Amino acid sequence: MVWQRRHILGLRDFTPPEYELVLRTTHTFQGVLARQNRKVPTLQGKTVVNLFFESSTRTRSSFEMAAKGLSADVLNFSPSTSSLTKGETILDTARTYCAMGVAILIVRHREPGVPHLIARDVDAWGVRVFNAGDGQHEHPTQGLLDLYTLCHSLDPDQPRPQLLRGKKVVIVGDVLHSRVARSNLWALQHCGAEVHLAGPPTLVPKLFRELGATVHHQLAPALEGAHFVMALRIQQERIDQQLIPTLREYHQLYGLNHERLKACAPGVKLLHPGPTNRDVEITSELMDDPQLSLIDRQVTTGLASRMALLYLLGGGKP
Amino acid sequence: MVWQRRHILGLRDFTPPEYELVLRTTHTFQGVLARQNRKVPTLQGKTVVNLFFESSTRTRSSFEMAAKGLSADVLNFSPSTSSLTKGETILDTARTYCAMGVAILIVRHREPGVPHLIARDVDAWGVRVFNAGDGQHEHPTQGLLDLYTLCHSLDPDQPRPQLLRGKKVVIVGDVLHSRVARSNLWALQHCGAEVHLAGPPTLVPKLFRELGATVHHQLAPALEGAHFVMALRIQQERIDQQLIPTLREYHQLYGLNHERLKACAPGVKLLHPGPTNRDVEITSELMDDPQLSLIDRQVTTGLASRMALLYLLGGGKP
Amino acid sequence: MVWQRRHILGLRDFTPPEYELVLRTTHTFQGVLARQNRKVPTLQGKTVVNLFFESSTRTRSSFEMAAKGLSADVLNFSPSTSSLTKGETILDTARTYCAMGVAILIVRHREPGVPHLIARDVDAWGVRVFNAGDGQHEHPTQGLLDLYTLCHSLDPDQPRPQLLRGKKVVIVGDVLHSRVARSNLWALQHCGAEVHLAGPPTLVPKLFRELGATVHHQLAPALEGAHFVMALRIQQERIDQQLIPTLREYHQLYGLNHERLKACAPGVKLLHPGPTNRDVEITSELMDDPQLSLIDRQVTTGLASRMALLYLLGGGKP
Repeated sequence: MVWQRRHILGLRDFTPPEYELVLRTTHTFQGVLARQNRKVPTLQGKTVVNLFFESSTRTRSSFEMAAKGLSADVLNFSPSTSSLTKGETILDTARTYCAMGVAILIVRHREPGVPHLIARDVDAWGVRVFNAGDGQHEHPTQGLLDLYTLCHSLDPDQPRPQLLRGKKVVIVGDVLHSRVARSNLWALQHCGAEVHLAGPPTLVPKLFRELGATVHHQLAPALEGAHFVMALRIQQERIDQQLIPTLREYHQLYGLNHERLKACAPGVKLLHPGPTNRDVEITSELMDDPQLSLIDRQVTTGLASRMALLYLLGGGKP
Repeated sequence: MVWQRRHILGLRDFTPPEYELVLRTTHTFQGVLARQNRKVPTLQGKTVVNLFFESSTRTRSSFEMAAKGLSADVLNFSPSTSSLTKGETILDTARTYCAMGVAILIVRHREPGVPHLIARDVDAWGVRVFNAGDGQHEHPTQGLLDLYTLCHSLDPDQPRPQLLRGKKVVIVGDVLHSRVARSNLWALQHCGAEVHLAGPPTLVPKLFRELGATVHHQLAPALEGAHFVMALRIQQERIDQQLIPTLREYHQLYGLNHERLKACAPGVKLLHPGPTNRDVEITSELMDDPQLSLIDRQVTTGLASRMALLYLLGGGKP
Repeated sequence: MVWQRRHILGLRDFTPPEYELVLRTTHTFQGVLARQNRKVPTLQGKTVVNLFFESSTRTRSSFEMAAKGLSADVLNFSPSTSSLTKGETILDTARTYCAMGVAILIVRHREPGVPHLIARDVDAWGVRVFNAGDGQHEHPTQGLLDLYTLCHSLDPDQPRPQLLRGKKVVIVGDVLHSRVARSNLWALQHCGAEVHLAGPPTLVPKLFRELGATVHHQLAPALEGAHFVMALRIQQERIDQQLIPTLREYHQLYGLNHERLKACAPGVKLLHPGPTNRDVEITSELMDDPQLSLIDRQVTTGLASRMALLYLLGGGKP
């Protein structure tokens, strides 16, 4: 398998050999990060731009560290100080960076499809584009880092997609508004996992059955025999939109805790893409339980995974 | 010619040998940027500060990339998180960076003259100052990158100021409020070009004749026989100030399009300092026409030009 | 003396050998900064995060330059674009950076104790924490750079804590709300200086006597025979809180000028942690008097001092 893909925009059309190569490369970078000198020279002299039209701490920082770990220079674009307020189009902003000779654009935007639009436009410049989250559509690097985290917990020496075959993975919470849920849905199903979604009907509509998932509006049956449980963040905004009554009531019905996880398969592990609302989606106690929680591992893996993806895409010549 | 100038504050007093050296050095850096490894070690261990009291994407990013291309460390100063809100004077802010031992300050401010004030104050520290735009006064690095872009389009192998002798260059739009127009006016006239200004009387007052330019309030005669046309950005603010009626009416009278450019000299080229308002100053179609538009080239040149200037100034010892 | 301390949180419990080692290491880095190549490779491949929950120019920039001077990568965290607005706790934000594998967190927060809380939490990750200012509590790196500045002015070749024995140091201004005053109070007294505090009773309560200082509400007796005078910044906020009537009246009673400093010991030197309000705490004339003012020197020393501290802490292995 030779890497062909020029942009990482979504996982919907990812193929098994691609998942395999990404996981193998991520595993290599986990090794690099364990070394005394964590830097490799792959992107020396190249510039990576964080083009975040939507605010972010963890994803932006993770990409920035990953790019610097590959010896790239990093420019941070912040929308508030941008030409966008001067009437420039998003595509012209992206093109400006291309004309400056940057190698890679990391794009986050609240509208779905913006990274695709930019990728189509800048492809002729030889510039690579990462979707770092577009609206409720996709967040492919989160999906890939979660995939590695799951496979690594099943076989730390040889994390590979095949390990997920027949595993039951439950995603709990605001699936409707979650790009993380969608990217995970594709990745998990492509690798043969059985995906269950749980939450109130306002946040987990039956429609998701059409994407191959099993939909639950009660938490208990969803958790039964689960190998992995992934909680999603609940936003205050959902209460304002009257999609859920209160955070407290949500916690009573769908909040994860030690008691509820007893229904899962032995050795069940817990994930959360962060940032978490402690004692809303998940009890503080459970979140900090090193036997059950893979949450810190997800963040650690995020760096290795993004280094791997930057490495795979950065190999291309403009 | 040995470079003597300690600060780049404006082009009004630039001399022909200086233009020549800047163009030659820019040409060298165009070569550097075409290499696989785009970095040179000139500013290794030195710090460049982006002291932008006014927001900016393209100029700030261009300087940041240029400085990093010369291996400098870059600090970004953002006014919102600054001590200015605590009552510190601008000069004290600049001095603080000098006392930390930075080598170069890149200053943008909405008041004309601020970079000059800072330069006078920090000169004793051996610190160099770039004016990255001061009010409506000057934007010298834009003037110099435009100069290179023009000369390069006339002779890509040996871009030199002499090529502009007798060329007709038309600047269209809000000349009154434009520091870009003023810096270009000096540079172009110093190099022997014939500068024409076009726009409504509210934005192109007759006063500009005193600076040596020909003033037009009709677009057609201005464009006749022109070798280069430079469009300037129209700001929404000008409507609020009742200087122009609407963006649409402005476009009808002064907007550039393929049809109107037919009156120009054969081989006419189009420039715009960006950010552009598509279909206001210029049609989208024209802007994207690779036969006519040098707009992307301006951005690309901007990097090489700023690397050249940082190189020339950074050679000095404190 | 081998350096043992894992975090720099405050000076209250600092020991004489620690002050001595910090001063000696700072002195070495002053030498490094005087070299042509100001970089050392100590933190190569490591990441330092500026976790500033409160805005700052000088301290953040100083830490950023210091970290880059040791060849570290630096991530800047800005609260406005953070996950904090999404309900994440401060500790979870800090942990996220730990999970990414950063080496050092520089923390500023308006609540006293936050850096301590974070340090306790992240210590198990091998991550080091600097308090870059917590509420009105401590600002230890300012205290240490001031200590070096004082000792260096007494003996430029061998600045050492013993030089301060019996010296009279007066701190003038808003001591009550000043973390700088508190950190200096500890450092100066630990090194044997005699600390006097001067200001209106609302800003210098008698309570400070319990910490070992002499309290004055008149400026003249405080300045008598003083070897060093340190002015503190007066914030507009104190007028709103009715703690002082006006800035002008404050200046008349407690503002430092050449005339008033005549009562001090010969060779008296002046300090101010910045940012200054010229002609409030101190006359413009006095501030710019190179014979008396050490204010620029403080900023210069700040860089060397923070490099020294990063060096001492960064030597540890996670």
